[in-house]
Amino acid sequence: MNFDYANRFAQAITNLHDEGRYRVFTDIERIPGRYPKAILKDPAGEREITVWCSNDYLGMSQHTKVLDAFQKTAKVYGAGAGGTRNISGNHSEIVALESDLADLHARDAALVFTSGYISNQATISTLAKLLPGCVIFSDELNHASMIAGVRDSGAEKHVFRHNDLAHLEDLLGAADRGKPKLIVFESLYSMDGDTSPINEICDLAEKYGAMTYVDEVHAVGMYGARGAGYAQKVGAMERIDVIEGTLAKAFGCMGGYIAGSADIIDAVRSYAPGFIFTTTLPPAIAAAARAAIAHLKGSSSERESQQRQASRTRQALTEAGLPVMASETHIVPVLVGDPVLAKRASDRLLSEHNIYIQPINYPTVPRGTERLRITPGPLHSDQLIGELATALTETWANLGLPAA
Amino acid sequence: MNFDYANRFAQAITNLHDEGRYRVFTDIERIPGRYPKAILKDPAGEREITVWCSNDYLGMSQHTKVLDAFQKTAKVYGAGAGGTRNISGNHSEIVALESDLADLHARDAALVFTSGYISNQATISTLAKLLPGCVIFSDELNHASMIAGVRDSGAEKHVFRHNDLAHLEDLLGAADRGKPKLIVFESLYSMDGDTSPINEICDLAEKYGAMTYVDEVHAVGMYGARGAGYAQKVGAMERIDVIEGTLAKAFGCMGGYIAGSADIIDAVRSYAPGFIFTTTLPPAIAAAARAAIAHLKGSSSERESQQRQASRTRQALTEAGLPVMASETHIVPVLVGDPVLAKRASDRLLSEHNIYIQPINYPTVPRGTERLRITPGPLHSDQLIGELATALTETWANLGLPAA
Repeated sequence: MNFDYANRFAQAITNLHDEGRYRVFTDIERIPGRYPKAILKDPAGEREITVWCSNDYLGMSQHTKVLDAFQKTAKVYGAGAGGTRNISGNHSEIVALESDLADLHARDAALVFTSGYISNQATISTLAKLLPGCVIFSDELNHASMIAGVRDSGAEKHVFRHNDLAHLEDLLGAADRGKPKLIVFESLYSMDGDTSPINEICDLAEKYGAMTYVDEVHAVGMYGARGAGYAQKVGAMERIDVIEGTLAKAFGCMGGYIAGSADIIDAVRSYAPGFIFTTTLPPAIAAAARAAIAHLKGSSSERESQQRQASRTRQALTEAGLPVMASETHIVPVLVGDPVLAKRASDRLLSEHNIYIQPINYPTVPRGTERLRITPGPLHSDQLIGELATALTETWANLGLPAA
Repeated sequence: MNFDYANRFAQAITNLHDEGRYRVFTDIERIPGRYPKAILKDPAGEREITVWCSNDYLGMSQHTKVLDAFQKTAKVYGAGAGGTRNISGNHSEIVALESDLADLHARDAALVFTSGYISNQATISTLAKLLPGCVIFSDELNHASMIAGVRDSGAEKHVFRHNDLAHLEDLLGAADRGKPKLIVFESLYSMDGDTSPINEICDLAEKYGAMTYVDEVHAVGMYGARGAGYAQKVGAMERIDVIEGTLAKAFGCMGGYIAGSADIIDAVRSYAPGFIFTTTLPPAIAAAARAAIAHLKGSSSERESQQRQASRTRQALTEAGLPVMASETHIVPVLVGDPVLAKRASDRLLSEHNIYIQPINYPTVPRGTERLRITPGPLHSDQLIGELATALTETWANLGLPAA
């Protein structure tokens, strides 16, 4: 008998329903100039909602400078890039963007990918493959794309407990001194909102002769004097070998990138299949990203407003007795601890309060830690924060969810 | 002693120089409304060139309808999508785009990724992981992204000789009847310009109870009555289980996609990390792609002009005694057979003739088959074809390259 494919795929879907973690994407249209407001496209009709879970953290996707650069460049150069970097797709905007990113991180060079996911996967795997006998040390809460890169490399790997310096040192100390070593971690973990001890990890890297690779996707644009990220904020940026970032969150566009020494960047450029075999980002996207980066290099007001409103949100929800998870950053997670209840809380917030906060469940976070993840930004007013606290309080009471 | 990282990366770069395959990206700016003309940004100064190697095959990146949709949507919805599909990034344009793609391929559903590379890698690996004990049968000339997906799946794999039906049948016959099987291949191989026997592969798939996955990235928009690809042209589209395509070539934008049954698409949507953990394509890109797809569903003139000009190019180069490689499609490869000479030929064409054709070398093609790969489109006039033949003839003579 032949294998029953249709049944197998139907079963895979049924399993997700049974576990309560089948994902339904909420269809929205943001309203220009009125971020975080959006239109919910619901089968029952359209209505206005407030988005509290976007990674367009500073609202830069709608910034005048960004939109101007986008439209102007589209008019002049067209939509797509028309090829890979090597085969006719190396347009001037992408070259200039990499120069701007190298400057942002005070590095020799930078390299742009089509997404943060592929930048992590391609870079980590390529670096490890180029280093004979490389041993990778990876934080247990690293993003799926970093884990994919580690796995893809085929290198020996050791997972250290989240932010646990003693455990990392034990593992580093146990490895051969002469072997190449790569420590991969994030500066800001986006599902908990906590940060890593970057300087202390760099101390260990120096002590044991390891390279460092840090994912700054939830920090670039938002931390440091010029928005270069959390490593800049804590004075560690120059100590990192490879900084990975994104153009899709605080910079409001799309794409991922790395910054590092000339030879490291050239090696990844030359050897990484995930970079070589893919069409370049469109000129308009590159130009829009350049406008966002340039603006945030010079302006701290968005960063300051974001921190202020995140702090006020955390305070309002804590005072309301909600189980706000500990975090010192712009991310405010509220624990539910069950996938079905997290989905019900999210559904109720949307249906009864016109508030959109996506439930976060496995595999994005460990099972049992399902949560609502709130991302206040500079455009979430005090009034919106008050409405949020009221709506969450009502929802928690209605569903009988555990308080703080 | 610590490992010497700097020396290792420098050595990796030196190796490429030594092999003559260090890649230098040519920095160009296309000229709006005058495609295939572009400005070469050279250290020695800027000058006008003709692009003969773009994958913007039909010039759709500059089509009025595409540009209108691109700019209008950016103005209304902003630059980036602001999140993953699951977390606030599921905008109406991407939902509509997937519906348009499902219609294009006469399938239940479609799913859009940020690139063709990630759509291949994520889909092949996810499908195989969902099918317990899956055996993959993969054409030896499959694209790097398909190979990455096969490897990433961890599944048992068998590579069959390029387009060799007898070899494929031997391998299928040797596998357990009841085991799930996945045949992965391309409809049109872009470096040689040849096509696969799609119907015959589907016959084998039916005979041995295998699923089929076909990469149509170099065919969508360009073949078939509505531009659905080579499988449509040969009447095999309905027989394929999963069709993979791109928005970055004939459709002139960026991104990759798959189309298939509702459950297959839902399974990939729900299980593929390369889909789940990445920011959605910007609304403007999705809208521009929709405009290109809609136009090419209804208009065959671009396809006809492309085939005519490709045919005229092939004829002109053949008559000039150049070693044109056999191909029945829009791709016209000319053999050089050496990476250093291919680079020198490309350099000379650019410096002496203002013609841009990137050399194609390893790992994109096997060593010893280095070539110039020419992609004539509807906008390459007969006059430009004549200039190309003259320039190639001069270059071949000057460098003493082998004739046909």
